[in-house]
Amino acid sequence: MTANRSEPTDEAKRIMAVAHRLADAARVQTLSLFRSPLLRPDNKSATGFDPVTEADRASERAMRAILATERPEDAILGEEYGVQNGRSGLTWILDPIDGTRAFMAGAPSWGVLIGVSDAQGPIYGIVDQPHLDERFEGGLGRARLISGRGTVRLRSRRGVALEQATLMTTYPEVGHPGEQAAFLRVASRARLVRYGLDCYAYALLAAGHVDLVIEAGLQPYDVAAPIAVVQAAGGVVSDWHGGPAHGGGTILAAGSPELHTEALALLKGD
Amino acid sequence: MTANRSEPTDEAKRIMAVAHRLADAARVQTLSLFRSPLLRPDNKSATGFDPVTEADRASERAMRAILATERPEDAILGEEYGVQNGRSGLTWILDPIDGTRAFMAGAPSWGVLIGVSDAQGPIYGIVDQPHLDERFEGGLGRARLISGRGTVRLRSRRGVALEQATLMTTYPEVGHPGEQAAFLRVASRARLVRYGLDCYAYALLAAGHVDLVIEAGLQPYDVAAPIAVVQAAGGVVSDWHGGPAHGGGTILAAGSPELHTEALALLKGD
Repeated sequence: MTANRSEPTDEAKRIMAVAHRLADAARVQTLSLFRSPLLRPDNKSATGFDPVTEADRASERAMRAILATERPEDAILGEEYGVQNGRSGLTWILDPIDGTRAFMAGAPSWGVLIGVSDAQGPIYGIVDQPHLDERFEGGLGRARLISGRGTVRLRSRRGVALEQATLMTTYPEVGHPGEQAAFLRVASRARLVRYGLDCYAYALLAAGHVDLVIEAGLQPYDVAAPIAVVQAAGGVVSDWHGGPAHGGGTILAAGSPELHTEALALLKGD
Repeated sequence: MTANRSEPTDEAKRIMAVAHRLADAARVQTLSLFRSPLLRPDNKSATGFDPVTEADRASERAMRAILATERPEDAILGEEYGVQNGRSGLTWILDPIDGTRAFMAGAPSWGVLIGVSDAQGPIYGIVDQPHLDERFEGGLGRARLISGRGTVRLRSRRGVALEQATLMTTYPEVGHPGEQAAFLRVASRARLVRYGLDCYAYALLAAGHVDLVIEAGLQPYDVAAPIAVVQAAGGVVSDWHGGPAHGGGTILAAGSPELHTEALALLKGD
């Protein structure tokens, strides 16, 4: 009898169980303010209360409270509350609301990002979209979408050349002018370019609906969880020079190695 | 005892019941192909089968079959199958999938549009998002969102000046260069500009989350249902010259009359 190589270790199971508890806790906090009348722009100035920031902070606090009891040896890097050192070698990388502008506009493309990294980079991640009840999970042997429609395996799309590809990015201006020019070298060859989906674009790539995501100006907490999910689904992620992307800055995510190579050459201006 | 002025007539109730039957039928057809492996771009060339067009056509055929038995006197204008004349004075205006590119990319911002117009323009409309299970309905005394979370009244947001406003459009390039310049006069003053949501942007405006939607290059079937829903929710819709928008072309939808006036002046270059 051969061992099942995809069966996670007990430690991996513990990490994943805690990650899902974080995502559950963040759902409660974010959904309580999503599409809330408290998000009216004119509510903001009167009292100094910023409901978007409040949703962000409450979501991250809820996640940190769980980590404090369940994973006290691990480090944390969160968008709202910064770095907390650890000594296990693992870091939880949290973005309590990625896509704050979509959140403000009532559009369900924002997400809660929960990544786990070791010294080499992300090993596991969750991209959760609470309003859609869609949770994309990848790493430590898993690659799946859990939703009200059931659980399905995540597998990025292969065999798609750039001329057939669907490309996503969040902002049309992408990054600084030089970055925009590099982006446009790829975009002008793709079949379809779509904007504005934030972290949900990576989730769609992992699920095989989108072929490329290209962005710039990112922070580590924007990319840790998406990298883990995309790689677990068979996709390839790097920065625009072909190096690791988990430090932030530029990112190129592709559904297949061949498409990654093709897009990378154009981004580098080879 | 005063009569309830918002109680619809029997004829209005019949129209609305049929509209919901159309939306139900379109959900079956569109969801059977949304995020389907049949949507792989490389499936298309081998057989000549275009699954997106097929989803569009099957959705419109299902709606026309219901109208043929339930509303034989009414005219139909549909994106896929064109005009069918009637003699009741009412026209059903159908876009079986508005946002085909979003549909192709797996993004849930496409919608099924069902509008009913008389000689003056739209009197009732449904903007349905099947994957989200969100149905926005407006006109004939109704303005509501029906979803798995319950039914809520649609009411556009008021008291928001342009500098606080969230603006949506589908494509960053908007229309031809002159139209783009007009758009940018408004966009440069808004607090937040988001792209890529197709008909769902109008639904978010009707629900009070977005303040402005500005687009160009539209067809009548793109706008009939959104106009009815936005107006029923208290919003104001016109073309970029202040005239009726239901003929297609340019459109300006605003959450309040004041914001409509402010944006219209900038679009006209006053």
